[in-house]
Amino acid sequence: MDETLEQELMARFERLTEELRTNQIQAFREDFLEMHYYEQGQFYQSLTSEDRLLLYSLLSPKEMADMFDVIEEDHENMSLYLSEMRPSYAAAMLAEMYSDNAVDLLNTLDKKQKAMYLSLMDKEVAADIRELLHYEDETAGSIMTTEYVSIVANQTVRSAMYVLKSEANVAETIYYIYVVDNEDRLVGVISLRDLIINDDDAMIQEVMSERVRSVHVGDDQEDVAQTFRDYDFLALPVVDYDDHLVGIVTVDDIIDVIDDEATSDYSGLAAVNVEEVDEHPLKAASRRLPWLVALLFLGMITATMINQYEELVSEASILAVFISLITGTAGNAGTQALAVAVRRIAMPEDKERSFLITVLSELITGLIIGLITGIVIFVLVALWKHNPILGFVIGIAMMCAITVANLAGTFIPMLMDKLGFDPAVASGPFISTLSDLTSVLIYFNIASLFMGYFIK
Amino acid sequence: MDETLEQELMARFERLTEELRTNQIQAFREDFLEMHYYEQGQFYQSLTSEDRLLLYSLLSPKEMADMFDVIEEDHENMSLYLSEMRPSYAAAMLAEMYSDNAVDLLNTLDKKQKAMYLSLMDKEVAADIRELLHYEDETAGSIMTTEYVSIVANQTVRSAMYVLKSEANVAETIYYIYVVDNEDRLVGVISLRDLIINDDDAMIQEVMSERVRSVHVGDDQEDVAQTFRDYDFLALPVVDYDDHLVGIVTVDDIIDVIDDEATSDYSGLAAVNVEEVDEHPLKAASRRLPWLVALLFLGMITATMINQYEELVSEASILAVFISLITGTAGNAGTQALAVAVRRIAMPEDKERSFLITVLSELITGLIIGLITGIVIFVLVALWKHNPILGFVIGIAMMCAITVANLAGTFIPMLMDKLGFDPAVASGPFISTLSDLTSVLIYFNIASLFMGYFIK
Repeated sequence: MDETLEQELMARFERLTEELRTNQIQAFREDFLEMHYYEQGQFYQSLTSEDRLLLYSLLSPKEMADMFDVIEEDHENMSLYLSEMRPSYAAAMLAEMYSDNAVDLLNTLDKKQKAMYLSLMDKEVAADIRELLHYEDETAGSIMTTEYVSIVANQTVRSAMYVLKSEANVAETIYYIYVVDNEDRLVGVISLRDLIINDDDAMIQEVMSERVRSVHVGDDQEDVAQTFRDYDFLALPVVDYDDHLVGIVTVDDIIDVIDDEATSDYSGLAAVNVEEVDEHPLKAASRRLPWLVALLFLGMITATMINQYEELVSEASILAVFISLITGTAGNAGTQALAVAVRRIAMPEDKERSFLITVLSELITGLIIGLITGIVIFVLVALWKHNPILGFVIGIAMMCAITVANLAGTFIPMLMDKLGFDPAVASGPFISTLSDLTSVLIYFNIASLFMGYFIK
Repeated sequence: MDETLEQELMARFERLTEELRTNQIQAFREDFLEMHYYEQGQFYQSLTSEDRLLLYSLLSPKEMADMFDVIEEDHENMSLYLSEMRPSYAAAMLAEMYSDNAVDLLNTLDKKQKAMYLSLMDKEVAADIRELLHYEDETAGSIMTTEYVSIVANQTVRSAMYVLKSEANVAETIYYIYVVDNEDRLVGVISLRDLIINDDDAMIQEVMSERVRSVHVGDDQEDVAQTFRDYDFLALPVVDYDDHLVGIVTVDDIIDVIDDEATSDYSGLAAVNVEEVDEHPLKAASRRLPWLVALLFLGMITATMINQYEELVSEASILAVFISLITGTAGNAGTQALAVAVRRIAMPEDKERSFLITVLSELITGLIIGLITGIVIFVLVALWKHNPILGFVIGIAMMCAITVANLAGTFIPMLMDKLGFDPAVASGPFISTLSDLTSVLIYFNIASLFMGYFIK
């Protein structure tokens, strides 16, 4: 953020805190409500618990809801905030929030609290929220909101505008108006843009678009995000299996989905949750250690493998020189293959390419990479050690190790995906530690075969 | 995409191709224009060159522009498409496109072609586009469009609605209306939502928000994206250094920015361009090889280091057993630290934390991780080999190697960022290959020190 803007905001926060503490109700409300909801949220989160209690007495549940709609915080704080409010106030605020955000908030609470807040709400709102609570995580249903504007086709633009005005205060977006039949089935859509450029007396059925793109409640949120990317929509209607309109997904939620998805793929690749960023070293360490220690045990298996060949090494200690070169290079190739595979799986349109073809083409890629890298290392070692046979051994081992690592990097995430796991769980460190094992086995087996020839 | 939807679209594409080839102008235009722009683009891209030539004769430049506004394609194809059209037709289409997209398209061409198309355009449009062409890559200026709606404050809601209706056809978004003074300085904003719920006779200056959030033309596009995330905006105004309104950035462009950013971080981490996904094995190999071979040379340096200790290994071949365990584990720790560092750098709000504090706190994190991993491996080796001194050597080496790798994973991307490079260029494979080198040095030096004690 701009520095002057930042400073201005800080000064504003100080003034607000002052007004809050000295009970200047009028001044505080004016200054507070003039801020963007996001800035209100920043201010709120900067307050002490005592100050927050004062705030609850000065703002209506609706004003609080507008602010809570944009706060994105971790679970602990959210439930703390709710517990500070009087239950009836909290319930009223939840009812005023967009239903998708209210659901997110309720999901941070335990069953009993959830039930309490729902029982304190207006029955209709509570019913809407209860329904949303039932949708599975990461589906369109779990990110949709029920605050949309729907009309019937058999009316004029003028009367549609009238409906719009009356719902503009509660709807999450009024920029698309969905047209439904008598049984609430989605039959068309018209954008507010089209609505205002059309004649007031035109009939909705004449000006609406009948080719309305929708998603199903059960659709994966990533597929929904892809549709937003392709079509550049600001919102998409969500229908149930009978084509009834049940909600909408808006673009701000899709940005969160895209962010989360990217973060989780990225975290997976490095075997670390990158959410930590500025954590205490102790906490950061505790997040990274489980993977490291787990992989350490896998690495120990590799060590015991090498241990089998200790005699070979003691006879030809030159072999030790190339262990890290072979395992490292194969590991790098495996990481590359893994990253491509995880990305390929994430792209819905590319899933159709058959498992076999993908693995085969990656096998060929691995062979090409292995062959060229093998030739390079053959030349380097032959020249360095004046020993072409040793160069040949290292080159062949390198080629095989790379091909296998490449294949593992492709095959394992694809298999995970088939089995229903998140392919990003197969992390780069896992693939490279696994490839250490196969590389070492390949290397020492090939070396044993040629043992008599490269030792002079 | 839904399978039935997919099939329906394919059938539609076939019918359209048929109509196009048999010159059923009326039917073709009706069926084509009823589709979403994205689907039109899909159809267009599925055509042969001959069929595309037919298409250009059936669609107006404006109709073509609507479709081109949503096509996202690689450079080669885009310039091919343009070269197929008559120059005057192509220029008219470019002029009808949103200026940000026209600029993207023009940027795929060489200077001479660019100049030709600009010379064929309406002068005012050409001037707008010329200005946009000057902004540096990855700034707000490079992704903004000039098709926005601006009004002056001194008018009623009714007259503002009138302006809006007249510009609705050309503006990229009409959902925010920006208020400017007589010198085109940004002084306020009002959403279409607020416009339609306010009384027609209300004055704009009374109903607009004066706290309008804007970005500067030179702002990094990632910072702009962060503002969209925070505030949930659909568009943001862009001002020059004198606060004149010069353009707007819309949320669909921001989604592309977020996608690109995530892809480049992710690609960097694995040292592979994940755009390849479904390429020919030969091409895929040629993309991955440069990094692999470059790192192979770095790995060769590590090998020559180990070579210095060949005598040590021939005396104590047991040392070879643990090479890959130590280099592998340190490499994993380095990759984790790298991923966190790259992510930290990408977050604008976290940049303020000082360089020194970050490096220090990562040093502590590395020490904790190293200490615990070192203890684990000490116990494992001591038990396995009944040799606590060997265990101690491996444990200490592991601890030091992890601490150094962790520090390198943090320090190198931060240094790159300070020097103005993209921190994602410091890839996971680079960090782990580099840490192989330091790990090996640490390992053999510590082993030399204790040589007399762990060999029985």
